[in-house]
Amino acid sequence: MAKKVIKKNAFYAQSGGVTAVINASAAGVIETARKHKHKIGKVYAGRNGIIGALTEDLIDTSKESAAAVKALRHTPSGAFGSCRYKLKSLEANKREYDRLIEVFKAHNIGYFFYNGGGDSADTCLKISQLSETMGYPIQAIHVPKTVDNDLPITDNCPGFGSVAKYIAVSTREASFDVASMAKTSTKVFILEVMGRHAGWIAAAGGLASTKDTEIPIVILFPEVSFDKPKFLAKVDAHVKKFGYCTVVVSEGVKSADGKFLADQGLRDAFGHAQLGGVAPVVASIVKEGLNLKYHWGVADYLQRAARHIASKSDVDQAYAMGRAAVELALKGKNSMMPIVVRKSSKPYKWAIGAAPLAKVANVEKMMPKDFITDDGFGITNKCRQYLEPLIQGEDYPPYKNGMPQYVRLKNVAVKKKLSEFKL
Amino acid sequence: MAKKVIKKNAFYAQSGGVTAVINASAAGVIETARKHKHKIGKVYAGRNGIIGALTEDLIDTSKESAAAVKALRHTPSGAFGSCRYKLKSLEANKREYDRLIEVFKAHNIGYFFYNGGGDSADTCLKISQLSETMGYPIQAIHVPKTVDNDLPITDNCPGFGSVAKYIAVSTREASFDVASMAKTSTKVFILEVMGRHAGWIAAAGGLASTKDTEIPIVILFPEVSFDKPKFLAKVDAHVKKFGYCTVVVSEGVKSADGKFLADQGLRDAFGHAQLGGVAPVVASIVKEGLNLKYHWGVADYLQRAARHIASKSDVDQAYAMGRAAVELALKGKNSMMPIVVRKSSKPYKWAIGAAPLAKVANVEKMMPKDFITDDGFGITNKCRQYLEPLIQGEDYPPYKNGMPQYVRLKNVAVKKKLSEFKL
Repeated sequence: MAKKVIKKNAFYAQSGGVTAVINASAAGVIETARKHKHKIGKVYAGRNGIIGALTEDLIDTSKESAAAVKALRHTPSGAFGSCRYKLKSLEANKREYDRLIEVFKAHNIGYFFYNGGGDSADTCLKISQLSETMGYPIQAIHVPKTVDNDLPITDNCPGFGSVAKYIAVSTREASFDVASMAKTSTKVFILEVMGRHAGWIAAAGGLASTKDTEIPIVILFPEVSFDKPKFLAKVDAHVKKFGYCTVVVSEGVKSADGKFLADQGLRDAFGHAQLGGVAPVVASIVKEGLNLKYHWGVADYLQRAARHIASKSDVDQAYAMGRAAVELALKGKNSMMPIVVRKSSKPYKWAIGAAPLAKVANVEKMMPKDFITDDGFGITNKCRQYLEPLIQGEDYPPYKNGMPQYVRLKNVAVKKKLSEFKL
Repeated sequence: MAKKVIKKNAFYAQSGGVTAVINASAAGVIETARKHKHKIGKVYAGRNGIIGALTEDLIDTSKESAAAVKALRHTPSGAFGSCRYKLKSLEANKREYDRLIEVFKAHNIGYFFYNGGGDSADTCLKISQLSETMGYPIQAIHVPKTVDNDLPITDNCPGFGSVAKYIAVSTREASFDVASMAKTSTKVFILEVMGRHAGWIAAAGGLASTKDTEIPIVILFPEVSFDKPKFLAKVDAHVKKFGYCTVVVSEGVKSADGKFLADQGLRDAFGHAQLGGVAPVVASIVKEGLNLKYHWGVADYLQRAARHIASKSDVDQAYAMGRAAVELALKGKNSMMPIVVRKSSKPYKWAIGAAPLAKVANVEKMMPKDFITDDGFGITNKCRQYLEPLIQGEDYPPYKNGMPQYVRLKNVAVKKKLSEFKL
């Protein structure tokens, strides 16, 4: 007689800022779980991340058709809703852990898949310790996701490659535009990109320029203190040589005094404080210092939602991470995170590995110093070799009447069994 | 014996703000001219538009390979450089007209193809009158191009459809993102788009929401005076119903006193004036009026350079307009502009027509009143029926190592024959 398999349900949730490919990871989790119904019962998704677990607001993904789950692979954003909510430590807020166990017990949840970045890895680590700390048996696996690309150990983070591709493509396109106009109009174009702590996304702007297609680009990294005279001299030199210049500026750039460059204390005519971006600040610096005509753009959510120009590498890896998370769970693992292991850059080859969550949580991977050129305004060849594979390949969504067909799930709620819980 | 064909060279130039598809028109002109070498000798392009003609800075497009010219079809921006330079009237600046004739004579130019918007149509009209006014025989044909979609008679303008598609797709994607985050984070996303005089581009944001995929969108048109209480009430109602709201705001929105909303007299901490966009102004209004968390983006050049997500209808029409311009010239026409004639919206069918330049120049086509909903914040079904065909179809550029392969021409200069000319 076969050994009796204990069948448990799984919990899956999306956490933190969403990306163009986090739903591909969801598809990887759900489709893989569906193939192992002897061990994994239903996959319940948390509505709005961990908040869904705390409030017993669970979504029954078994109500979604195979086609709908498949379509998650080409749908940006978080299909179940995400949240910015960090669990405190067990000591600081035991009430929340008690509640999670109550919900997990009520819904027979034995697998916990949490799809997020650094903060979420910390949450997932805490959940993974519930067996030890509170005697509730659970296997918690973290599914990596962050456009910030700052998780350690993994070669890169799903979500980043697609932002990088969007920024590289957009920078190339806008630079072509400026080059055409520079004779009598705009000479400097400034594009503000995400990345408050690390310059990974800004670095992707450097990919717009290649040997085939040289483009004068000045990158302002959060890792490099803003030096106005040096910056103006660099832009001036580019404009003199090429006729134009493109500036890619990270939202997190700081001046030497440690203040965000964006934080210029802007006031309107009535003296009200205005929240501006860093792009208009850099534009004003260019105007004042060089008297050159400029334009500026702020990509904001467009960059991380741009599934229409997602990187195929990124989509594949996001899906693979979701699948691998379930496979790790099926192997009996706990407190782990699947990772991308780079085997070769040219041609690009990667494999799936795994890292213990204890080594992932609360560690931020910064850009290596040797990824930034000596003058502080560009990317080195080493950086380029790292970045290029991550934007490889296109993976277009289907279109209908000119618009991408992104899926919206039914998101049917699981019947509640418990009393209400106040967050 | 066959009638002797007088062979003349052609001049082609790009004018005003460039687009994702103006080079497709260039390809249409050059490829069609190459098929009629018995009548059209060489196609000389003006480097930086009409300035190239005035300064005798001509590019010999016959030096470009067939492959390079074909690649123009998928390359955004103006491959020969554009300019913002409006010829004055003959009376006000005869010197420039004398010079143009001098250059045309020196290079045996008998065809003048000018690729631009309203101002350029005016320039082209003036050139078309040179036979009459100054006795120099020339056929001038205008090739329509403008993201502003404000040329009259033609159903739409090449360049607009691709911006519309970019804005519609980006608005849908960013809205999906905000919807995921709204529970604990951003509830209002504001996207600033081009269109100083007419709301055509802002209207395209409305295409993000369809029957299949409803999205709460508030559009701020330049045609509608900004009414703060009404706007805040609308956003508030959407957030209450849907949990979030997306605002698409035209850069040209004005308050009731006729001032641009963007022009808020922003000052930095030192009292220096700052040139901001309208998106941060709207963001501040949302923050102050409703105290909702917001994000904002400014698409700027990204929207009109985004060849990676160009509309196939638009690319096809841009090419067809270039081809038709040459065909009109071959038929002996002067002072004309090829136009798009809509035959049917569903299914989309269009044909090529022609309009006399005298009826095109200096006429601006505004959005019809019945394209905007009664509350002033949305598009009507009539508007939707007009816009939807224009974003139909995808026409992806080729990629290499994850990046779109946009062509750069050799742009070999034609040997100068004349003395220098000061602009």
